[in-house]
Amino acid sequence: GLTEFCRVLHPAVIANILEELEPREVWAILDHADLRLRVEIFEYINLRRQTEMVAELDKRRLSELLEEMSPDDRVDLLSRMPHDRVQDLLPLIAQAERNDIRRLLSYEEHSAGSIMTTEYASLPADITVNQALQRLREQAPNSETIYYIYILNSARRLEGLISLRELILARPESVLSDIMQRDVIRMRVDEDREDVVQELARYNFIAMPLVDTEDRLVGIVTHDDALDVVQEEATEDAYRQGAVEPLRDDYEDTPMLTILWKRGIWLLVLSVVALMTAGVADIYAQSTAEGGARASEAPPGLTSALIFLFIPLVMASGGNAGSQSATLFIRMFALQPADAAVPGMEYHVDRDLILREFAIAASMGAVLGAMDFLFVWLWFDKGVDRAAVVGLTVFLIVILGTTAGTMLPILFRRMGMDPAIMSNPLIAAIVDVLGIVIFYEVAMALL
Amino acid sequence: GLTEFCRVLHPAVIANILEELEPREVWAILDHADLRLRVEIFEYINLRRQTEMVAELDKRRLSELLEEMSPDDRVDLLSRMPHDRVQDLLPLIAQAERNDIRRLLSYEEHSAGSIMTTEYASLPADITVNQALQRLREQAPNSETIYYIYILNSARRLEGLISLRELILARPESVLSDIMQRDVIRMRVDEDREDVVQELARYNFIAMPLVDTEDRLVGIVTHDDALDVVQEEATEDAYRQGAVEPLRDDYEDTPMLTILWKRGIWLLVLSVVALMTAGVADIYAQSTAEGGARASEAPPGLTSALIFLFIPLVMASGGNAGSQSATLFIRMFALQPADAAVPGMEYHVDRDLILREFAIAASMGAVLGAMDFLFVWLWFDKGVDRAAVVGLTVFLIVILGTTAGTMLPILFRRMGMDPAIMSNPLIAAIVDVLGIVIFYEVAMALL
Ligand SMILES: [Mg+2]
Ligand SMILES: [Mg+2]
Ligand SMILES: [Mg+2]
Ligand SMILES: [Mg+2]
Ligand SMILES: [Mg+2]
Ligand SMILES: [Mg+2]
Ligand SMILES: [Mg+2]
Ligand SMILES: [Mg+2]
Ligand SMILES: [Mg+2]
Ligand SMILES: [Mg+2]
Ligand SMILES: [Mg+2]
Ligand SMILES: [Mg+2]
Ligand SMILES: [Mg+2]
Repeated sequence: GLTEFCRVLHPAVIANILEELEPREVWAILDHADLRLRVEIFEYINLRRQTEMVAELDKRRLSELLEEMSPDDRVDLLSRMPHDRVQDLLPLIAQAERNDIRRLLSYEEHSAGSIMTTEYASLPADITVNQALQRLREQAPNSETIYYIYILNSARRLEGLISLRELILARPESVLSDIMQRDVIRMRVDEDREDVVQELARYNFIAMPLVDTEDRLVGIVTHDDALDVVQEEATEDAYRQGAVEPLRDDYEDTPMLTILWKRGIWLLVLSVVALMTAGVADIYAQSTAEGGARASEAPPGLTSALIFLFIPLVMASGGNAGSQSATLFIRMFALQPADAAVPGMEYHVDRDLILREFAIAASMGAVLGAMDFLFVWLWFDKGVDRAAVVGLTVFLIVILGTTAGTMLPILFRRMGMDPAIMSNPLIAAIVDVLGIVIFYEVAMALL
Repeated sequence: GLTEFCRVLHPAVIANILEELEPREVWAILDHADLRLRVEIFEYINLRRQTEMVAELDKRRLSELLEEMSPDDRVDLLSRMPHDRVQDLLPLIAQAERNDIRRLLSYEEHSAGSIMTTEYASLPADITVNQALQRLREQAPNSETIYYIYILNSARRLEGLISLRELILARPESVLSDIMQRDVIRMRVDEDREDVVQELARYNFIAMPLVDTEDRLVGIVTHDDALDVVQEEATEDAYRQGAVEPLRDDYEDTPMLTILWKRGIWLLVLSVVALMTAGVADIYAQSTAEGGARASEAPPGLTSALIFLFIPLVMASGGNAGSQSATLFIRMFALQPADAAVPGMEYHVDRDLILREFAIAASMGAVLGAMDFLFVWLWFDKGVDRAAVVGLTVFLIVILGTTAGTMLPILFRRMGMDPAIMSNPLIAAIVDVLGIVIFYEVAMALL
């Protein structure tokens, strides 16, 4: 039954299935596995779910779990737990692990130290290959990887590197100092994690060694964590490019209030700049109001005059809201291979997610619309009816922009095309056309 | 001297230095290394430079080089070479390698097969651990990695997997079939490379095995190539998000004409949509020209009327040109760790690159400006003087947008901040304000 289930499938596959269940149910299943396997599966569960799961656990079982976890994953989890709980737990954790935790917790968030693990394989230089293999077998259970073996002197300074490949190809009686690579590429533990990952990529390393200011080895960054960092940094940059403040978790896992804040703050800032644009246009329009009219042409009416002033604001609001949605959905699809989905459901997008998107759009549209209404009425002094036209138009265009930004990538994906083709500027351009139409229709209806 | 230089430094470091030299100079240095090391260094050189370098080489030396290269890197290079040259070369290459090349060349560009290598370690299931280690030592020189050993049956079907870690921890007399992992995670060679990389990331694999329709092992995708794919796909998506068609090489290495095309085509499409916006506004403005005027207010002059119609076009042109530059520079900085630069030059940006950016902006601005001039004059029938105002404004705003999009990320980087903070919408918003100013000033000067 469940014991078999835990033993036959890959821990990552089990973790994937368990992520769909309630914490209580997950523990009920994990109890059928021994501690080692339980921790292995647990480590594959995403961090947000891990945090929810440990909130259910009593101190004794949690400390047991933490002691067995990889140093890097353990610290990631602890740094998400309430400070008090961590202080409560630490005394229950063995001395060696406790020191390790304290040290790893001290590295800054985007430093190399924050993604390293301290469970590396190391050996002295003066032993033979045969002795090295023997010692390596002892170290293996507590090493994240034994494919790179770091050669340290008595002060733990990094003197050399031997790969396991080189080790098993070498003659058994060779001494490590004769066969090891010297001048090992290394980086400082306080460097930016992005730089470390770029260097790891350049050298095609399985792990990058990190040293302190005294050149002592303090940890390694492994290839799998490097890959995750590249994805996270790309997500961060894509979000910024789309005017969304980076999120800690996947978009679909982030609470709505957090999203409203991370998106809304950008739309507000951008709207303020757009209102400045309107202010500049207003000054110019007034100073040129009398000039330039030719006899044969009628100057445009006042509806157009209003629209002229605020169309950049309307277009920016719609385009930016649309860019946000498109960015978030395109990135979500890029991180979610169609292949990993349930067969037949590859291109399915959760309906709740789309509904939430509209709720977000409506909320943001209402706030922006209200702000713009007040500005047009009180600051620009254009009268309450015209202010209402602008406010309502902004509200509608934000919803419309979100619809385009959400639906076009979904549509492209459904058609088997890359949703990323639906670039933000294209969505913005489409929203621009609709912006004019909505603005005029609202103005003609209300004025 | 040079021989020492080639032996002491890491091949990736040497490659990095050699990338700055002329092909002829590079070969002069590489001749001091034996074939194996020469190929190792050559493989770390970027593909564009590799292509230039082999153009210099005679057939005999080139075939020798190709025979020694990794199957995946070799095919990447061959697929960039002129078709005739490849056909000339193939007869000089040994039969086994020739077949391998033909097969790998047949996979589609974004398939898993296009990034796999065929040099994996494999063993039958019925041998002992001791025998396995012996055979592995023989296979090692021709295996990209020996850390994952695939267990194949006589039909080359994938039956199991043993990691080198498991192998050296096992008792020497154990039989592989008793200790191997069964139900190995595998993917199909014709799947999308992005899906394969996502799955490799999920399982934290060093390599992902790829099978054909008969479940026979045909190759592996290794962790280092997976990391490169993640970077490339993120770059592609960032470019699309910024309205730039994906480039084959790094931005700084791409010829200017290619860039003009990859950026210009998007600006043209987006301008056509913006002209539609103007068309819609024109219709509405004419139909509402008489209505809504209150006695106390003067309707705006004709200058404002012109600006009203075409301000979305002007803003879109400036904003999109700025987004392109910002996207390209931000991504370039993200892929170029400050750390890797010459000390003291970390934040240096090549002056030629900035000058080139302005040349690109001027060219794109001229084409867009000319197109808009013709549309406003002939299609919208607004008179040649007004058409000139729009055309000139677009030309100026494209240059201005590019300046903002280039300089703001550079400035942020100089100040030690993440250039990615300079989001595209913020640049577009800043350009919007300036757009109004330029448009009015040009109009007042020319009309
Ligand atoms: Mg672990
Ligand atoms: Mg961490
Ligand atoms: Mg960073
Ligand atoms: Mg690499
Ligand atoms: Mg790890
Ligand atoms: Mg970053
Ligand atoms: Mg815009
Ligand atoms: Mg190779
Ligand atoms: Mg390839
Ligand atoms: Mg793809
Ligand atoms: Mg992973
Ligand atoms: Mg490779
Ligand atoms: Mg892609």
